[in-house]
Amino acid sequence: MTKQKLRIGMVGYGFMGRTHSNAFLTAPRFFDLPYQPELTAICARNADRAKAFAENWGYQSTETDWRKLIARDDIDLIDIAAPNNMHMDIAIAAAEAGKMIMCEKPLGRTAVESQKMVDAVEKAKVPNMVWYNYRRIPAVTLAKHMIDEGQLGRIFHYRAKFLQDWTISEDLPQGGEGLWRLDKSVAGSGVTGDLLAHCIDTAMWLNGSIDKVTAMTETFIKTREHTLTGKIEPVGIDDACAFMGRFSNGSLATFESTRYARGHKALYTFEINGEHGSLFWDLHDLHRLEYFDHRDEGLTRGWRSVHITDGEHPYMDKWWVPGLSIGYDESFTHQAADFIMGLNSEAAAPTFKDALETDKVTDAVLRSAETGQWEIAN
Amino acid sequence: MTKQKLRIGMVGYGFMGRTHSNAFLTAPRFFDLPYQPELTAICARNADRAKAFAENWGYQSTETDWRKLIARDDIDLIDIAAPNNMHMDIAIAAAEAGKMIMCEKPLGRTAVESQKMVDAVEKAKVPNMVWYNYRRIPAVTLAKHMIDEGQLGRIFHYRAKFLQDWTISEDLPQGGEGLWRLDKSVAGSGVTGDLLAHCIDTAMWLNGSIDKVTAMTETFIKTREHTLTGKIEPVGIDDACAFMGRFSNGSLATFESTRYARGHKALYTFEINGEHGSLFWDLHDLHRLEYFDHRDEGLTRGWRSVHITDGEHPYMDKWWVPGLSIGYDESFTHQAADFIMGLNSEAAAPTFKDALETDKVTDAVLRSAETGQWEIAN
Amino acid sequence: MTKQKLRIGMVGYGFMGRTHSNAFLTAPRFFDLPYQPELTAICARNADRAKAFAENWGYQSTETDWRKLIARDDIDLIDIAAPNNMHMDIAIAAAEAGKMIMCEKPLGRTAVESQKMVDAVEKAKVPNMVWYNYRRIPAVTLAKHMIDEGQLGRIFHYRAKFLQDWTISEDLPQGGEGLWRLDKSVAGSGVTGDLLAHCIDTAMWLNGSIDKVTAMTETFIKTREHTLTGKIEPVGIDDACAFMGRFSNGSLATFESTRYARGHKALYTFEINGEHGSLFWDLHDLHRLEYFDHRDEGLTRGWRSVHITDGEHPYMDKWWVPGLSIGYDESFTHQAADFIMGLNSEAAAPTFKDALETDKVTDAVLRSAETGQWEIAN
Amino acid sequence: MTKQKLRIGMVGYGFMGRTHSNAFLTAPRFFDLPYQPELTAICARNADRAKAFAENWGYQSTETDWRKLIARDDIDLIDIAAPNNMHMDIAIAAAEAGKMIMCEKPLGRTAVESQKMVDAVEKAKVPNMVWYNYRRIPAVTLAKHMIDEGQLGRIFHYRAKFLQDWTISEDLPQGGEGLWRLDKSVAGSGVTGDLLAHCIDTAMWLNGSIDKVTAMTETFIKTREHTLTGKIEPVGIDDACAFMGRFSNGSLATFESTRYARGHKALYTFEINGEHGSLFWDLHDLHRLEYFDHRDEGLTRGWRSVHITDGEHPYMDKWWVPGLSIGYDESFTHQAADFIMGLNSEAAAPTFKDALETDKVTDAVLRSAETGQWEIAN
Repeated sequence: MTKQKLRIGMVGYGFMGRTHSNAFLTAPRFFDLPYQPELTAICARNADRAKAFAENWGYQSTETDWRKLIARDDIDLIDIAAPNNMHMDIAIAAAEAGKMIMCEKPLGRTAVESQKMVDAVEKAKVPNMVWYNYRRIPAVTLAKHMIDEGQLGRIFHYRAKFLQDWTISEDLPQGGEGLWRLDKSVAGSGVTGDLLAHCIDTAMWLNGSIDKVTAMTETFIKTREHTLTGKIEPVGIDDACAFMGRFSNGSLATFESTRYARGHKALYTFEINGEHGSLFWDLHDLHRLEYFDHRDEGLTRGWRSVHITDGEHPYMDKWWVPGLSIGYDESFTHQAADFIMGLNSEAAAPTFKDALETDKVTDAVLRSAETGQWEIAN
Repeated sequence: MTKQKLRIGMVGYGFMGRTHSNAFLTAPRFFDLPYQPELTAICARNADRAKAFAENWGYQSTETDWRKLIARDDIDLIDIAAPNNMHMDIAIAAAEAGKMIMCEKPLGRTAVESQKMVDAVEKAKVPNMVWYNYRRIPAVTLAKHMIDEGQLGRIFHYRAKFLQDWTISEDLPQGGEGLWRLDKSVAGSGVTGDLLAHCIDTAMWLNGSIDKVTAMTETFIKTREHTLTGKIEPVGIDDACAFMGRFSNGSLATFESTRYARGHKALYTFEINGEHGSLFWDLHDLHRLEYFDHRDEGLTRGWRSVHITDGEHPYMDKWWVPGLSIGYDESFTHQAADFIMGLNSEAAAPTFKDALETDKVTDAVLRSAETGQWEIAN
Repeated sequence: MTKQKLRIGMVGYGFMGRTHSNAFLTAPRFFDLPYQPELTAICARNADRAKAFAENWGYQSTETDWRKLIARDDIDLIDIAAPNNMHMDIAIAAAEAGKMIMCEKPLGRTAVESQKMVDAVEKAKVPNMVWYNYRRIPAVTLAKHMIDEGQLGRIFHYRAKFLQDWTISEDLPQGGEGLWRLDKSVAGSGVTGDLLAHCIDTAMWLNGSIDKVTAMTETFIKTREHTLTGKIEPVGIDDACAFMGRFSNGSLATFESTRYARGHKALYTFEINGEHGSLFWDLHDLHRLEYFDHRDEGLTRGWRSVHITDGEHPYMDKWWVPGLSIGYDESFTHQAADFIMGLNSEAAAPTFKDALETDKVTDAVLRSAETGQWEIAN
Repeated sequence: MTKQKLRIGMVGYGFMGRTHSNAFLTAPRFFDLPYQPELTAICARNADRAKAFAENWGYQSTETDWRKLIARDDIDLIDIAAPNNMHMDIAIAAAEAGKMIMCEKPLGRTAVESQKMVDAVEKAKVPNMVWYNYRRIPAVTLAKHMIDEGQLGRIFHYRAKFLQDWTISEDLPQGGEGLWRLDKSVAGSGVTGDLLAHCIDTAMWLNGSIDKVTAMTETFIKTREHTLTGKIEPVGIDDACAFMGRFSNGSLATFESTRYARGHKALYTFEINGEHGSLFWDLHDLHRLEYFDHRDEGLTRGWRSVHITDGEHPYMDKWWVPGLSIGYDESFTHQAADFIMGLNSEAAAPTFKDALETDKVTDAVLRSAETGQWEIAN
């Protein structure tokens, strides 16, 4: 009963390299997978870091050049957990080499980059997926089921925000370990690609496509030291971004994201209001789905705080007993499991093509912030 | 269309004198009453205070001796808002004079006192009521309706607590304005009669009588200056009291009260767990009734936070529009209105007789704290 | 020690006629006022209704023509609680007659109307105020004090929303008792003037003026029966409105309002994020001010749920004891009290002139929703 | 740099067999451990189940007789995750064989059993620990630090409850997979050993020893089918248990546990009130520690909802980034890591000896429920 192996080559060893590695190790313990994921090689420019990472996570080998990683015969899947500016080149090369690809979000730095990546995987016909992990938080997955079943009826409003406060200090540099998210050349954008991309992916999954947007952005701290040059350089990213828009189904969109909201660490929330009911979710308390059902008897109608830990809730039969929580990281475990389980049929979403749609919206958002006009999003 | 007057003689001008006066002024603006309450006289030992109070609240006259107040022909109803040690004498005299009586809780300092008061009003056949106002917070009233309709099924548990933190300082004296609650000779007991009495009244109203209890009490600060003697005197009251018990319906009771719970000002909460569902209420957020209905569909079952402000909720058709709150004090307004509306039929509860049952439980609680044994409560 | 009277002539007997009347009756019981408010006359077109209202609230007389009310010598203050389309004419006439004026919000249906009203009261030099009552919810007042003291430091974000769900049914007509808010000719606008005006008033009070905005509106239900014509007529109001903007202090504004958010009755919330801390408030739980102070020690830093019921909190020394709530309606009581206490110095805010600034923003919002452009707000 | 191995022999493959196995696999990925845990053997009476479990979790071998497991030379540590009635025999034999021991809680079914287990490990001088995992939820660990530092001052109250609702159905049998917790001969007791033991362990860790208790228990459903006999048999366990008590430091204890509280799955909460402040924690939202500090400035004092996910919070530097949660199961990971890190110094708590103290309290609780008297707890 030995399973066929799924041999993984990981590029990147940062925060996302860790969550992805953990997911591949955990998934087969909790899910019955058709393939056995194997941590075959980790690639990082710095050989020592690659080695330390390999030792910690159990990778069997290391590489320092991602082109060599892709060239290896003993690798089935390339997982891209490197900074955004490297996504496109690695993905296209991996596709050309016929590898399956899992890529950290956002797909490209712009929709132009993303389009090329989509073209590459479609030409190569390789399974592909983008790690928009929040879709697979059980409460969010349940929200999707409920909306698809029509529990909310006609949708009027969708609002989302992703609030953080970690860049308020002027002393924080741009660039360097974990700080490439402040460097526009690497990240592509600030909160728009980093945080709003998550909000948009979830939103379009739950509520369909977004047609047009109007946006504003702000960079509160205009210059920061750059760790590469050692000099004070202009900050190119957006510190905050808000936009309004229209979904194709006629509902209204209001989105906001910032790294300047004191007291919020990773407050990703969404709320959707329909004719029959509403749903609200908050990443900080990720097991709770708040649900209002107007069809409940009037006297005792109220927002229900549903604790999504029962065996019948999405994914939760795989874990512990009712009332007990799983971590943020298990959303990656679920995604890894779904991808592997989907390999014999069709790849689990979101594919590169799905993720491209998100990038079209973020591009339109940034464009609108420049022009002050409403912009078409797709 | 002039209504017959209901001429009120109030004894006491403290916190409760204010809530009662306010209730009589407000009730006729929001409820259609068969009698028009009139603030005829206020009685206080100190003539200046009586006068100031009369001026502020619109009382037409003042008295300094409650026996004279009772003797007046132009008074229909005596409202007792004086400290606990005066309740019995005033009530018995008022009953003998044929006056209707509304008495602040607890009825007597002990069940022995309360029994005499019950005997007096029953002999005199005068309408009577005790101001256990929390029954008439709309969310609590709704809880009563739901339980009576069997929404919760067989009851397993009832738990209540009333937590405060205002007497932690050693510098607080016993006795004096607003501090008679720390003087056992005036108050009768500490948190047991002051706070647990409320919890017990609500509990027995919602869940039936309590058969037996076991209790513990504590006086954390053993001596305090007494404002009358100017000396440090032993503290006779209970600073904290907890008890467990059995209701007649077989459910388990757990109650706790204290003035030493940092961070809680007036945290009166109760929760009742039944076969089909549960209810939870909290005085600090008094418009919310938390309701869990196990009969809801399993996937989306959760505690509902019902905001009790709709027109169909108890009493709320009399006030503003959905979503808007009323104050704590309107529980007194509702009680005044219900009493007056009940005058042509039978008096609204709780009557003196009902309140006596509560005093029997508090007596048993204090007795058990002495003996360390389970004690019969009625 | 008889106080001079402040003789009030009220126009309107609806929801706001009730809250204002209640405020004038309650204020002198809880606040030490230099004048004694007297409910001298109520004016309503329908004589029977005027009479019933007078009887209920204790008005001494009635009028059916507001011009006659204004002409009376025994009236000091005209309180305008009539529908929006009547505000301007009554206010200008009252000013010309030298009466003090308190006007329900919004001031005019448009800034053009409001400007004329400002001109009239400034010319007449009469005390004037607009009933933006939420400023005087104790938690909101405390927020103002904290911001003015610099507790939050440099402000980055201000977000507010006011969500309701009462007009989702297609069967609801426009026009008629309480439904004039759906009739554009009477109301001027939909949620923008009704709900966002409140949000904007609070926002500019707390965070200064708003320079420019971009907005979107939606009318989900396009036609409704009109009670006056009995016919199905186009709906002219905005059912939902969202806007983004910039405050003069550089902070970003995100606002939203709707009557199509299932599960929300009167969910007015605001949040303000500054360099040192953040504040959040919610009308549904109006005694709570959520406060995050980044200067707290790092390990135990968190959002504080401050229960604004202590004696040292704004206005709360006038009411009950810590932990006990007051109602929504007491925000009107506070406003009445502040106005009367201000008569010997300068009138309490917001004056007509202050309220005009709000109308300039709502006008810009509605204009932007038409043009799709950013619009200057003042 | 190859680490010495810590070779683990696991007994039991149920819920706790899974959490422990997961902990040993996860700990070395996130913590820098002096030994490398190795899943050497799993023991279960049923060979097929043992094999399936071994395959899933990566155990290298299986046993069906725990005596053989203990006899193996290649095992360093015996982890007891079998039902309660097997704890004593396995632990004593393992100690005699010189193995380190980790034992699932409660230690024995009674303090008598536990005492023998303590004697055995003390005689053998083997490292030992009991899996009271909740101590190592980061928020609970932080609470411990805060109390030890004196942040709360003199303690007045400690209250805890553990509420579930999974046994309300009469159709649930006693015995069988996962249902041995309803069979007294296997479990020893009902909620007292299962749930209150957790509450007591945490309480004594945070607040010191408990001197005496008074308790009540109830078995709501008196008979259930037993899966072994196939017959309806009396139910011997306690379905609910509440007790009050005194800590050695003078504070008052109120504890309650049940499996009959509708709407609660695993609602383990505790609250501790001290002179300077209070703490509250809830397993359902395990990352939040609610903290009230009376020394905060009076106007803005409130319960702080501290989201325990920052790098400086206990254990959290090992995981993700601020705002992101870890699962319930990581409390076991932390315990495994602490135990392994403690092997070169002294074993991490709670040891068998510590756990014996908890069993003395649960014994006294059950005794008191029988006698109706206060019972000495240690």
